[in-house]
Amino acid sequence: MTPALGVCYYPEHWPEDVWQDDATRMVDAGLTWVRIGEFAWSRLEPSPGDLQFDWLDKAIDVLGGAGLRVVLGTPTATPPRWMLTKHPDMLAADADGRPRKFGSRRHYCFSHQGYIAECRRVVTLLAERYGHNPHVQAWQIDNEYGCHDTTLSYSPAAQDAFRDWCAQRYQSPDALNRAWGNVFWSMDYADFDEIDLPNLAVTEPNPAHVMAFRRFSSEQVVRFNRAQAEILRRHTDAPLIHNYMGRVLDFDHFDVGADLDIASWDSYPIGFLSDRLDAPEDHKLRFLRQGDPDCQAFHHDLYRAVGRGRWWVMEQQPGPVNWAPWNPAPLPGMARLWAWEAFAHGAEAVCYFRWRQAPFAQEQQHAGLLRPDSADAPALAEACQVAQEMEDLETAQSRAPVAIIFDYASAWAWETQPQGADFHYFNLVFDMYKSLRRLGLSVDILPPDTDAAANYRLVLAPGLATLPDRLMQALSDPTHTSLIGPRSNAKTEEMSIPAPLPPNIPGLDARVSLVESLPPGANIPVGAGHIHKWFEHLEGKAERLVSTAEGQPVVVHANNCFYLAGWPDGDLAAELLSRLCQQAGVETTPLPEGLRVRDTATHRFYFNYNAAPVTHQGRTIPAAGVHWEDL
Amino acid sequence: MTPALGVCYYPEHWPEDVWQDDATRMVDAGLTWVRIGEFAWSRLEPSPGDLQFDWLDKAIDVLGGAGLRVVLGTPTATPPRWMLTKHPDMLAADADGRPRKFGSRRHYCFSHQGYIAECRRVVTLLAERYGHNPHVQAWQIDNEYGCHDTTLSYSPAAQDAFRDWCAQRYQSPDALNRAWGNVFWSMDYADFDEIDLPNLAVTEPNPAHVMAFRRFSSEQVVRFNRAQAEILRRHTDAPLIHNYMGRVLDFDHFDVGADLDIASWDSYPIGFLSDRLDAPEDHKLRFLRQGDPDCQAFHHDLYRAVGRGRWWVMEQQPGPVNWAPWNPAPLPGMARLWAWEAFAHGAEAVCYFRWRQAPFAQEQQHAGLLRPDSADAPALAEACQVAQEMEDLETAQSRAPVAIIFDYASAWAWETQPQGADFHYFNLVFDMYKSLRRLGLSVDILPPDTDAAANYRLVLAPGLATLPDRLMQALSDPTHTSLIGPRSNAKTEEMSIPAPLPPNIPGLDARVSLVESLPPGANIPVGAGHIHKWFEHLEGKAERLVSTAEGQPVVVHANNCFYLAGWPDGDLAAELLSRLCQQAGVETTPLPEGLRVRDTATHRFYFNYNAAPVTHQGRTIPAAGVHWEDL
Amino acid sequence: MTPALGVCYYPEHWPEDVWQDDATRMVDAGLTWVRIGEFAWSRLEPSPGDLQFDWLDKAIDVLGGAGLRVVLGTPTATPPRWMLTKHPDMLAADADGRPRKFGSRRHYCFSHQGYIAECRRVVTLLAERYGHNPHVQAWQIDNEYGCHDTTLSYSPAAQDAFRDWCAQRYQSPDALNRAWGNVFWSMDYADFDEIDLPNLAVTEPNPAHVMAFRRFSSEQVVRFNRAQAEILRRHTDAPLIHNYMGRVLDFDHFDVGADLDIASWDSYPIGFLSDRLDAPEDHKLRFLRQGDPDCQAFHHDLYRAVGRGRWWVMEQQPGPVNWAPWNPAPLPGMARLWAWEAFAHGAEAVCYFRWRQAPFAQEQQHAGLLRPDSADAPALAEACQVAQEMEDLETAQSRAPVAIIFDYASAWAWETQPQGADFHYFNLVFDMYKSLRRLGLSVDILPPDTDAAANYRLVLAPGLATLPDRLMQALSDPTHTSLIGPRSNAKTEEMSIPAPLPPNIPGLDARVSLVESLPPGANIPVGAGHIHKWFEHLEGKAERLVSTAEGQPVVVHANNCFYLAGWPDGDLAAELLSRLCQQAGVETTPLPEGLRVRDTATHRFYFNYNAAPVTHQGRTIPAAGVHWEDL
Repeated sequence: MTPALGVCYYPEHWPEDVWQDDATRMVDAGLTWVRIGEFAWSRLEPSPGDLQFDWLDKAIDVLGGAGLRVVLGTPTATPPRWMLTKHPDMLAADADGRPRKFGSRRHYCFSHQGYIAECRRVVTLLAERYGHNPHVQAWQIDNEYGCHDTTLSYSPAAQDAFRDWCAQRYQSPDALNRAWGNVFWSMDYADFDEIDLPNLAVTEPNPAHVMAFRRFSSEQVVRFNRAQAEILRRHTDAPLIHNYMGRVLDFDHFDVGADLDIASWDSYPIGFLSDRLDAPEDHKLRFLRQGDPDCQAFHHDLYRAVGRGRWWVMEQQPGPVNWAPWNPAPLPGMARLWAWEAFAHGAEAVCYFRWRQAPFAQEQQHAGLLRPDSADAPALAEACQVAQEMEDLETAQSRAPVAIIFDYASAWAWETQPQGADFHYFNLVFDMYKSLRRLGLSVDILPPDTDAAANYRLVLAPGLATLPDRLMQALSDPTHTSLIGPRSNAKTEEMSIPAPLPPNIPGLDARVSLVESLPPGANIPVGAGHIHKWFEHLEGKAERLVSTAEGQPVVVHANNCFYLAGWPDGDLAAELLSRLCQQAGVETTPLPEGLRVRDTATHRFYFNYNAAPVTHQGRTIPAAGVHWEDL
Repeated sequence: MTPALGVCYYPEHWPEDVWQDDATRMVDAGLTWVRIGEFAWSRLEPSPGDLQFDWLDKAIDVLGGAGLRVVLGTPTATPPRWMLTKHPDMLAADADGRPRKFGSRRHYCFSHQGYIAECRRVVTLLAERYGHNPHVQAWQIDNEYGCHDTTLSYSPAAQDAFRDWCAQRYQSPDALNRAWGNVFWSMDYADFDEIDLPNLAVTEPNPAHVMAFRRFSSEQVVRFNRAQAEILRRHTDAPLIHNYMGRVLDFDHFDVGADLDIASWDSYPIGFLSDRLDAPEDHKLRFLRQGDPDCQAFHHDLYRAVGRGRWWVMEQQPGPVNWAPWNPAPLPGMARLWAWEAFAHGAEAVCYFRWRQAPFAQEQQHAGLLRPDSADAPALAEACQVAQEMEDLETAQSRAPVAIIFDYASAWAWETQPQGADFHYFNLVFDMYKSLRRLGLSVDILPPDTDAAANYRLVLAPGLATLPDRLMQALSDPTHTSLIGPRSNAKTEEMSIPAPLPPNIPGLDARVSLVESLPPGANIPVGAGHIHKWFEHLEGKAERLVSTAEGQPVVVHANNCFYLAGWPDGDLAAELLSRLCQQAGVETTPLPEGLRVRDTATHRFYFNYNAAPVTHQGRTIPAAGVHWEDL
Repeated sequence: MTPALGVCYYPEHWPEDVWQDDATRMVDAGLTWVRIGEFAWSRLEPSPGDLQFDWLDKAIDVLGGAGLRVVLGTPTATPPRWMLTKHPDMLAADADGRPRKFGSRRHYCFSHQGYIAECRRVVTLLAERYGHNPHVQAWQIDNEYGCHDTTLSYSPAAQDAFRDWCAQRYQSPDALNRAWGNVFWSMDYADFDEIDLPNLAVTEPNPAHVMAFRRFSSEQVVRFNRAQAEILRRHTDAPLIHNYMGRVLDFDHFDVGADLDIASWDSYPIGFLSDRLDAPEDHKLRFLRQGDPDCQAFHHDLYRAVGRGRWWVMEQQPGPVNWAPWNPAPLPGMARLWAWEAFAHGAEAVCYFRWRQAPFAQEQQHAGLLRPDSADAPALAEACQVAQEMEDLETAQSRAPVAIIFDYASAWAWETQPQGADFHYFNLVFDMYKSLRRLGLSVDILPPDTDAAANYRLVLAPGLATLPDRLMQALSDPTHTSLIGPRSNAKTEEMSIPAPLPPNIPGLDARVSLVESLPPGANIPVGAGHIHKWFEHLEGKAERLVSTAEGQPVVVHANNCFYLAGWPDGDLAAELLSRLCQQAGVETTPLPEGLRVRDTATHRFYFNYNAAPVTHQGRTIPAAGVHWEDL
């Protein structure tokens, strides 16, 4: 499939008489896809049962007629106000038990059966009407699951559903008590109906209780999504998509993705660097108008895995947004760079969000390709340039030499029991990813149940709370190189310490006898860098690769299977990963700061995230510039 | 009217047998006014209908008999505990929906009709009894509206009243939906009774919704105050006063002030610098025992406008207070300096708070003119000195050469939608005010509906969300100099982006094509300083006065009407305002740090806020000193 | 009594068939005591009335049979889930009014009569069964009162009880109104049932109201504990113990201790330094794996006073814990050092917490003497070493030359009314204690109602809100040296400013005319150091010992009774206390950083808290080392 550009559009926001002109301008700009409809429920059904689909018919006609391919969104992220009158208890509740009220979006609890039935109803109506419409060439279900911390709900509906879930999973209260270790602090239950949600306890609740609630909450998202997917499948052959967010880990995207055809995500590089990434202030200032040089690539690679190869950017930042603490404008060139980077990572489509900046409501300060007065915003010209450049370039994806395992359940495990205040699973994986990328590598991301690990020269599995048997087999296979740890295989599925002690790698005589979390400033010198944040004391006779300056083991191994007993800083990670790459026969090229590389089957792409030109091996790439060469 | 000193006194706190002695000492100290009664409801009406006015009769007799002029407060800021039994739902609710309980003060919701009726009842009783008492020469209504964040209430009473307010303002739900842009995210309402207050939404509520709630909340204060003013007018000719607070912006003081005769405010320079002003730590330490050199003057000038020329300091800090995070003592001399500064800005009266430090309850660590053991506190001697000095000095106010527009609704707009985390309207205006004062200027403050703008050589309108037509006319009049912006005329009354794009100044070909908010450290070099926090990209052919180092326009103009496209730091503001003053024919004299000047019709006053003497143009003014010269 | 080592054990966590082996290993390690049972209610009474004591019988048999002495805990800190079904309103409520739910521990309100009756019932059953069991040689009542901020409850049960308490204390609403100064802000009550708890008020509630609630809350803990103690006394002669926590000040430990025979506390040096002590980051990093050099000693001395000479460490940290923000491992040697330090301060027993690390539930990352796989954890060998060393060393306690008064009510007073944001009573006393210890001194701690003050050469009474008459008598006795202040005798029992003004020391002509709290950076130079945080202006003719650089009095005195008018930093405190010690004939020896000394009747002990060896007067003490010499 040839990749394409697109845009998000809200016909219901504008007078009908501008739709045609908008459509023409989109096509003229080189756009192919247009996503519509995902927040329009109050205009499709202004009161219960009063269906008003005519305007949508017409909008699809106009857009499709102009040559655009329509992605139609189901509107279930924004139930109308009357839904609350019908289902007053459908709201999610926050951890303080307060209902999360109407007035913005995502105001529903994933466990509310009445609301799920309403979603089924409206999706059935849409699928029946548009499932075979030739212009509707893809469907988006709901919008940004989990955004605004909406995965976890502490509502009565969630409590009921969680009790049922526990009953199904554990079958008897005794089995649950044993699994969770409820003998500790007399937390035994005699009946599933005694189990509350793990909020507002006097002090820390049982981590097994929290972890069960986290698994349950993720599964509720999967079920909610599946209810719509099943209906759509009956009426359409067009691919089903969801638009995920950046650094939202509260539900298992691989599980949701299994019911869909394409993964997509909403990429806001500047907002994410400011609001969602943990980075030093000087890094945030250096890349203020560009975004973090690895954040987009990481999510591209992650969602490529979630989509089993098929993925989009459904929303691409085109200018300043409205929702970060501060909202600077992208450097000239970034709207082009971001799109090219997505294509280099295999995106089938990149849709800018949104066509015309809305002068009203929550996102009125969110830029579009057009200004509110319909004049071109700066990103429009860059989109046009990308569209033209794409005509001359054909490429295809290839497997990366290196892979990292990414596991949502591990994020929940370490959030449940960080043991050190700054132990964030995302940061641990992202640090490793960044270090690989600074060595000039392309990286694939794999789910924990992957059967592809053996296809890579080097596989990393940092912080994987529970290592599935099949993966352990693959990683400990002596014919490939792998790096496990830190804090890998450290918990059972029920969030307890396994016996024998971790990491329990076949053939590796090493046990974690003690763990330490370390505050900022308490760094342990190792080679060219330090261990910080987390350090494990190892015992056993496994051969050492790396030790601390004081002689404690840091990396041990059996053949090509390495175990890392702490969280390396950038310098140590660079040193260690270089060595492992060499061992694995993976060629590395350390890159200047802010420059990144991505290899496809045919080309090597360079992306300069700096605000100044950078020269590397004779090439000079301008500020915010993209460069590609045949491989 | 000759200005005078006064004091706040609580006869109900002390045995009757000390009243006479207190009154005599007040008179001996040179005090003229005494404010009483504003928290005494539980002693005036210990149980419902059981009126106990005898003690107040006597207190007024004693004080008035000693020659003091009494300001009588209505006691509605502190309803007695039995009021809650009668009206259990009268409490305000915080943004979390929790009732704000009895046990301190201001425990009422401005929208509760039952409580308003009780206020009418008690004020009628007081007005009937004391409206013609010759000693009662002024009335204070309630106390410090909005203090402790009490303007906004999320109670059921507020919700009902807000729905009525919406119904009156918009007439139909459809009109409201259109005005707010509720099509966005399916937020349409079919009935006014569906509208909730904008709290506890899943994410950001519609800014138009919030802004409507802010306007409503301000109007509720106006109505509450008016209910009392109307009753008092029927029974007395004495002037009506309210004592406003420092940096409380949640209601429109101009609107409340329109129903009153005199504006007054409660000036706590040291507490405000520590607790309410945003300033670097070194600034806070430098002026630790003096207060910010501009904060008092700013509020004096603001409340002079609110009082349409008539204003007081109703409460003047005399020593350490109890409510700031830290509470140091004023430098010797400050209790005098503050009083003189108020008189130089036109105060009719300055009343110290309070006569004798109470040894009990919340403010027991709040200094008075007397200590709890009735010995003189340090400020008493300074008050005596001021009283003596006033006998020798007569002065009168005159118009300042420069004015700044101050608009409460703009504070709400930018609080509703800051777009940058540190975009505070107060700080923007105050930065401009400070820069003018550092140039040695006296400044007037004007409301946005002023018709006096044309009387000034230079008028500034920074951050004015919506420029009223009349004001725009005056500011763009080529015969006067004005500086508009940044972020001026950037929103409609309904909190959307106007068409055409801002600033839309007649005759000025400039449009804001893009806005950026900038985090700390992301400064844009301009001339002698920088733009920080906020920067607007301008397009159009307007003539430039100032550009960034990279060549983007910062100040453009048509004739004498200038538009400023960013938030200047101190250095840039000084450079820019010097230039505009020169252009406008306003003479400037840069002052040493901590020294400030105020011109009256007859004198130039110097105030040294430093803890060390300062020399300026041959004059040496001692630490915490005041100096005046004939003009 | 010869001191002994012990351990905390949970037979209910492990299969019965390992109990015997565990017991044997305990005895082999040199342990004497084993504490059991304190969280086992759900296994003792799985459903209401279904008593299952067999397993406990057997566990006591096995442990006692192996030669161990059993401490049996009452299980009232962890009521089973069915208790909530019986008493749904038994939960405490937090300051926001939210019930603090089941799911961890300490989920009860001290004021709930129904739950207290349940506690009486279960304790009666236990006492009847084990009161004369020869293996049960001590009893622990409940567990860590006040931990997780559980002393204060804002539940309906607490509200009812508080009203009764007020009625009993004040007898009439008028008396209460007078005592609290409720005339201020019309806060008068007409009926005790009108009194709410002092939470969720609009702004600061009356400090007298808060202070009454604090006294009430403390007394509820005393009563709760006494209810169990009275029952146990009827059935056993074994000593009664409670295990207090570090830096928990919410209830009066002296009052609880009066009903018990032995005080004990739970000592987690590394967790406390990280989580509960206020100290600069570099200090926290320096002692990261050792704990603060004075924190343990301070609590040892405090609980020796609470236990009237008899005290234990009931839980001793053996390795990394799970509950601090970061959890590093102790340096090798610290598990020995901590135990020896406790014995040097007079502990009768030191019990490590816990025997075997549990692989499940909340504390699965909390180290024990055994690892989860039953292998020895590092601390076990250190415990063995201590056990062996104890056989060769006999010592006895002696009175220290210096004492400090410690008063829980003062902690409440200054928390109620800090006046400066960093005015913490604990820190003030601890600063003084640290300064004495750095001078090489052993220190005793005394309660405010002590009659032993006259036995010390020097007594300090910093921050004592209300000085009891008897203590004032002793401190102002010219035959001994005392240091009173700052902020001593500054409040009445009802939290108002006393008349005459403080400190009101017999024979000392000094009054606090004004107080200042000072933010960080606002230091007042005095001698070799500074006053920071708090400074009092003194008037009167008392002789001065120390003045500020500007000449204000800092220390005044009459004979040997000194009053200190500010909070000294470390340098000033060292200078001042050296001088007072000299005056009092107390010999001082300034110690190197991290080295501390404790004298018993027979030996001088040295404890090196540094991570490196330290040499002092010819002795070199290794890192984390202990050294003792005959005196």
